[in-house]
Amino acid sequence: MALLWLFLPRPGAEAGEAGPPISKETQECLNCHSDYQPGLVQDWMHSLHSRVTPEEALKKKPRERRVSSETIPAALRGVVVGCYECHSLNGAKHKDNFDHFDVRINVVVSPADCEVCHEVEAREFAGSKKAHALGNLAKNPVFHALVEAITSVAELRDGKVMAAGASEQTKNDTCYACHGSRVEVVGTRTIKAEPGDVVLPKLANWPNQGVGRENPDGSLGACTACHPRHEFSIEVARKPFTCSQCHMGPDVPAFEVYEESKHANIFHAKEREWNWEQVPWRVGLDFRAPTCAVCHSSLLTSAGGDVLAPRTHDFGARLWVRLFGLPYTHAQPKSGDTALIRNRDGQPLPTTFTGQPASEYLIDPKEQARRQELMKGVCRSCHNRDWVDGHFDKLNSTIRETDRMTKAATELMQRAWDAGLADRSNPFDEPLERRWMKQWLYYANSIRLGSAMSGPDHTSFQTGWFDLTTHLRELQEEIEARAKAK
Amino acid sequence: MALLWLFLPRPGAEAGEAGPPISKETQECLNCHSDYQPGLVQDWMHSLHSRVTPEEALKKKPRERRVSSETIPAALRGVVVGCYECHSLNGAKHKDNFDHFDVRINVVVSPADCEVCHEVEAREFAGSKKAHALGNLAKNPVFHALVEAITSVAELRDGKVMAAGASEQTKNDTCYACHGSRVEVVGTRTIKAEPGDVVLPKLANWPNQGVGRENPDGSLGACTACHPRHEFSIEVARKPFTCSQCHMGPDVPAFEVYEESKHANIFHAKEREWNWEQVPWRVGLDFRAPTCAVCHSSLLTSAGGDVLAPRTHDFGARLWVRLFGLPYTHAQPKSGDTALIRNRDGQPLPTTFTGQPASEYLIDPKEQARRQELMKGVCRSCHNRDWVDGHFDKLNSTIRETDRMTKAATELMQRAWDAGLADRSNPFDEPLERRWMKQWLYYANSIRLGSAMSGPDHTSFQTGWFDLTTHLRELQEEIEARAKAK
Amino acid sequence: MALLWLFLPRPGAEAGEAGPPISKETQECLNCHSDYQPGLVQDWMHSLHSRVTPEEALKKKPRERRVSSETIPAALRGVVVGCYECHSLNGAKHKDNFDHFDVRINVVVSPADCEVCHEVEAREFAGSKKAHALGNLAKNPVFHALVEAITSVAELRDGKVMAAGASEQTKNDTCYACHGSRVEVVGTRTIKAEPGDVVLPKLANWPNQGVGRENPDGSLGACTACHPRHEFSIEVARKPFTCSQCHMGPDVPAFEVYEESKHANIFHAKEREWNWEQVPWRVGLDFRAPTCAVCHSSLLTSAGGDVLAPRTHDFGARLWVRLFGLPYTHAQPKSGDTALIRNRDGQPLPTTFTGQPASEYLIDPKEQARRQELMKGVCRSCHNRDWVDGHFDKLNSTIRETDRMTKAATELMQRAWDAGLADRSNPFDEPLERRWMKQWLYYANSIRLGSAMSGPDHTSFQTGWFDLTTHLRELQEEIEARAKAK
Repeated sequence: MALLWLFLPRPGAEAGEAGPPISKETQECLNCHSDYQPGLVQDWMHSLHSRVTPEEALKKKPRERRVSSETIPAALRGVVVGCYECHSLNGAKHKDNFDHFDVRINVVVSPADCEVCHEVEAREFAGSKKAHALGNLAKNPVFHALVEAITSVAELRDGKVMAAGASEQTKNDTCYACHGSRVEVVGTRTIKAEPGDVVLPKLANWPNQGVGRENPDGSLGACTACHPRHEFSIEVARKPFTCSQCHMGPDVPAFEVYEESKHANIFHAKEREWNWEQVPWRVGLDFRAPTCAVCHSSLLTSAGGDVLAPRTHDFGARLWVRLFGLPYTHAQPKSGDTALIRNRDGQPLPTTFTGQPASEYLIDPKEQARRQELMKGVCRSCHNRDWVDGHFDKLNSTIRETDRMTKAATELMQRAWDAGLADRSNPFDEPLERRWMKQWLYYANSIRLGSAMSGPDHTSFQTGWFDLTTHLRELQEEIEARAKAK
Repeated sequence: MALLWLFLPRPGAEAGEAGPPISKETQECLNCHSDYQPGLVQDWMHSLHSRVTPEEALKKKPRERRVSSETIPAALRGVVVGCYECHSLNGAKHKDNFDHFDVRINVVVSPADCEVCHEVEAREFAGSKKAHALGNLAKNPVFHALVEAITSVAELRDGKVMAAGASEQTKNDTCYACHGSRVEVVGTRTIKAEPGDVVLPKLANWPNQGVGRENPDGSLGACTACHPRHEFSIEVARKPFTCSQCHMGPDVPAFEVYEESKHANIFHAKEREWNWEQVPWRVGLDFRAPTCAVCHSSLLTSAGGDVLAPRTHDFGARLWVRLFGLPYTHAQPKSGDTALIRNRDGQPLPTTFTGQPASEYLIDPKEQARRQELMKGVCRSCHNRDWVDGHFDKLNSTIRETDRMTKAATELMQRAWDAGLADRSNPFDEPLERRWMKQWLYYANSIRLGSAMSGPDHTSFQTGWFDLTTHLRELQEEIEARAKAK
Repeated sequence: MALLWLFLPRPGAEAGEAGPPISKETQECLNCHSDYQPGLVQDWMHSLHSRVTPEEALKKKPRERRVSSETIPAALRGVVVGCYECHSLNGAKHKDNFDHFDVRINVVVSPADCEVCHEVEAREFAGSKKAHALGNLAKNPVFHALVEAITSVAELRDGKVMAAGASEQTKNDTCYACHGSRVEVVGTRTIKAEPGDVVLPKLANWPNQGVGRENPDGSLGACTACHPRHEFSIEVARKPFTCSQCHMGPDVPAFEVYEESKHANIFHAKEREWNWEQVPWRVGLDFRAPTCAVCHSSLLTSAGGDVLAPRTHDFGARLWVRLFGLPYTHAQPKSGDTALIRNRDGQPLPTTFTGQPASEYLIDPKEQARRQELMKGVCRSCHNRDWVDGHFDKLNSTIRETDRMTKAATELMQRAWDAGLADRSNPFDEPLERRWMKQWLYYANSIRLGSAMSGPDHTSFQTGWFDLTTHLRELQEEIEARAKAK
């Protein structure tokens, strides 16, 4: 059955043509897996990987290339990028490597494997906060306490709610779904297949496609977080739905803010006329309103070919300030590994509870200015200088004011802790502490994202100023009531 | 005026062609109604109903057919499926049948009418929870109390809020908008039309397109809930926007969860390249990421034609567990008519307040296993066995933990009722009871849907674990405060 | 570089053709700005403005025209509508007019400038609530107090939260982002450009595209609020994403309600087959489900050419009742300038706190009936008379019941003010007052929009009846607790 439709031309090939060469090993994979995972195989057949050999890809002009490595191994150059080409790389490093009918296969393909052809992207990504997203939660004792507090199942003992501890499954289902899980080989399991039994590595914390996944080869990240499944489509990565998988919800409503912006209005109305495959991506000619990728990642040129912004796979590299308050905004960290940071109070946080930045771990004003000028340049593709300056002046005012609001809330919370109205041993588990958290984690973040990307509902009524001013007063009232009751 | 554009070829016909034959009666309908409801008539002109006669439809191979009845009456076979063909069926059973310029017409077309050509679908649907959606609320005294409590207008008497009773209009505007209303003939009304007066049946609780509508012919359901208006498009039903009409919001955020999943990411980015009309629907070839219909309803085959899942119009038929807690998760009910259920405490609920299932009304473990294997087979079209097993293991863990959280909340609530801090006569009308409800109705449901369909925001911050753990403690604190105040 | 791609044919022109004439001044703008703002220039190149001269536009039949002025000045008629044509109009009135390399240019293009060609639209808009959206907030002392209360940054003094005043930047970032800011020239600034220094007007409260913006020429409004940037696409304005920019969120979830309606279901599934450019817009032929524009603005005809509704740019002109309660629903105001209104209690509100309408400022029952009949006519394009009447009967019931709920909440709040439990000097700044506000601003509004446009989640669980009935009782309980504590 499988063979029948493998003779169908691949989407890139003319009818009657066979398309570019496929390795013998990949052909064997396809022979069975087109029966076992027909959707997966079809997905790959729609990818560039199935239609272009690295050799052909390297013939493009450097700026138009989608492969950045100059030195792709000869064995990979002449065949399309099939199952075997990716799932067999660096086998010695892969604890998930196994014998599959006399071929050595890795279950998980990691950024270290993709790096063989996509070297620059892998290197940029490796230094980013995204690559370290799991460790930045799990190795930071403050954030680890936060994760545990939020996700711990509870039970009633003598009428009191008692946390019973957060399970790995629930952490994988919540925080680590985006941040990435630690995928480990914990044994083997045997499955029966038509040609005979297969002994497979048994993986813990799997499946997971979080962006900071720890892989069985020791590498960090999951390229499929943004280049999903086996089509590896640049169109998918460039559209905002990819980023929305994680950057949404009351803590980080970036996608919701985008959705209510004029940028998204134009995107939704007109995107089907745009060119989603063009590399480099030409402002105004290929697209006429930005998506997330335009401002944060893609190689942009004018219609005439001037480079407006170079490509980056460190998605914070164009950002000077981190709007996501912990609890205050701060200059972007120098290293993607933020678990290293210690502020003046010895906490692993980029600011103290009074707002002092841990400056030695953060980029300096000169680097901030350089990045801001780069981003403003992207804006100026479509807006004039006055417009852009006015926009960022407003954002700066909003950053200052929301940080002031966080300071007021944090001072209130400090008073409550000092007065014994809450227990600061875990600062995130009591209802009063959750109220404080929502001030900076939900409302201040939402307002700043709303300001930065022009989504006025999120500055106003949707986890915006209405909530920020309401709940600051409620926090005060509740602390007073608790003090009185005590 | 009408005649002018009726001579335009229908979308399915070549220019100059008249298209397949239209009955004399339908032609008369069109002559007037193309003036009175031009949009409605155009909608029908874009449907398959206007372009294909049942006779032609039956010539297709069984698996490609969209009609499932083998025995369509001769009178209907040779003409397209027009106004008269549907609105005249089974007139004797239709209390809404009336004389319309010497033709007998039913106002409402019901599933019993659609059954003439779509027998299998109508039969499957009739046994489903959807067909019984109105009775499952209205005939179940517990859920009836819930509906009344939520939707009752109130007034102030001596400074106290007093419920004044829920009106039929408000129930139709809220719960029954999705569940369906009871459409009844309550008299006649006369309207003036160009050719003369028309005496029409006057309908109560109309309009309504709820999926469990009670029709004037005694049948249950509204096919237009999912096959909207007069285009009856399979494309519309296959896209997730159809299901989103009801399966959204804090109680059942299925659509929102889908939207943040990788499945929806791919759907939104690439769906315009897919084939939305193909029957059967070929995984990977016609679509490359699932919509609701793929997993829950459609006939799926591989590109080569192997059947991966048969079509069903009982949308729970592939489900083994009901994630929607009442208040706990439970095995799917055997019958779509869930008002029959009685648990060990005599309540019309599938579980007791301590979590014991009403097993004799629920499918047994063997049937659960059969259904789970079928659904896993759908997943395995694109994912390997390890992936799929790991995914469902995680879901099972989440089911257990959220049920434990519901149990803790319910024990707290029981204490409050026992202590007279709330009145259990209607367990859904007081603020304290609403807090308890939100634990299982909003947060636990949201988390489980988020886990099942990989939407990590809904397991975390969007009516997720953050709320579940916050509000359990708040519930405890509030009960303590009320006890103290008392 | 710029010149290179200016020789590319504009999208409307055949290859090899130059397209219609461009003025010398506009050509000079393009020479530089295609380098400086390549995206902006490309946007314009995709507009009708760049492809059609007013002279050509006027040759269309009146009903098909997109220009409504009969008397377009001769100087503008023969060239396409380029940079200079719009940015040079009415210079004497523009305080933002400046010398730009010997050409006089206005920074801001205003409705008074667009009026030169689009006279009817500008006149209709000028009388609407939208044109007065800024003044309706800022000049109304009650709403001004509301804006200040919501957006004021605060600080802690002696453990008390003290409002420190709302900044202009924050008001521009929140309420005025949609309502419009007051754009003023406050000085000059000099920027360096390649051909030499440019002295530009320095604008306060800029950028802003709020629909009621006060422009430097004294006019009100921003056409770009809905016809974004330099493509001025009718397709964009007709799609619901344009309206969603402002009409969303818990206070006015019109877009969210639309999204869950059957209308939006059909729109999302099928819109790519529709004709978004056709004028007039033919029901059923060009589109098969309404968007916001269909019901509230566009010129609609049947496929045969009968006018079903004339075009209007006063977007309230087809509405008889204002569902947005202040705090109660009321007949639509006669004038778009609602700051003029005084109710019987002397408040600048369309109803008193007991629900009495300020009738002399509101349209009368006859005008209400006329508008309702017009809107019902739009509905009857696709639905029969019974259906439409039943729909609006249900809405009327919901209006009455939600107003009753607002009355109960307001009576509770009056008691609290009278008892000194809250301070009515600013009725919007205390937590208790915010609870009261949410009853009418969030829940009652949401329910009515949900009823009007058939979005049952927003009548039920999403800021719907569940919240309305829960929080009314909570308001009572909280007032009692405060009274007791006092």
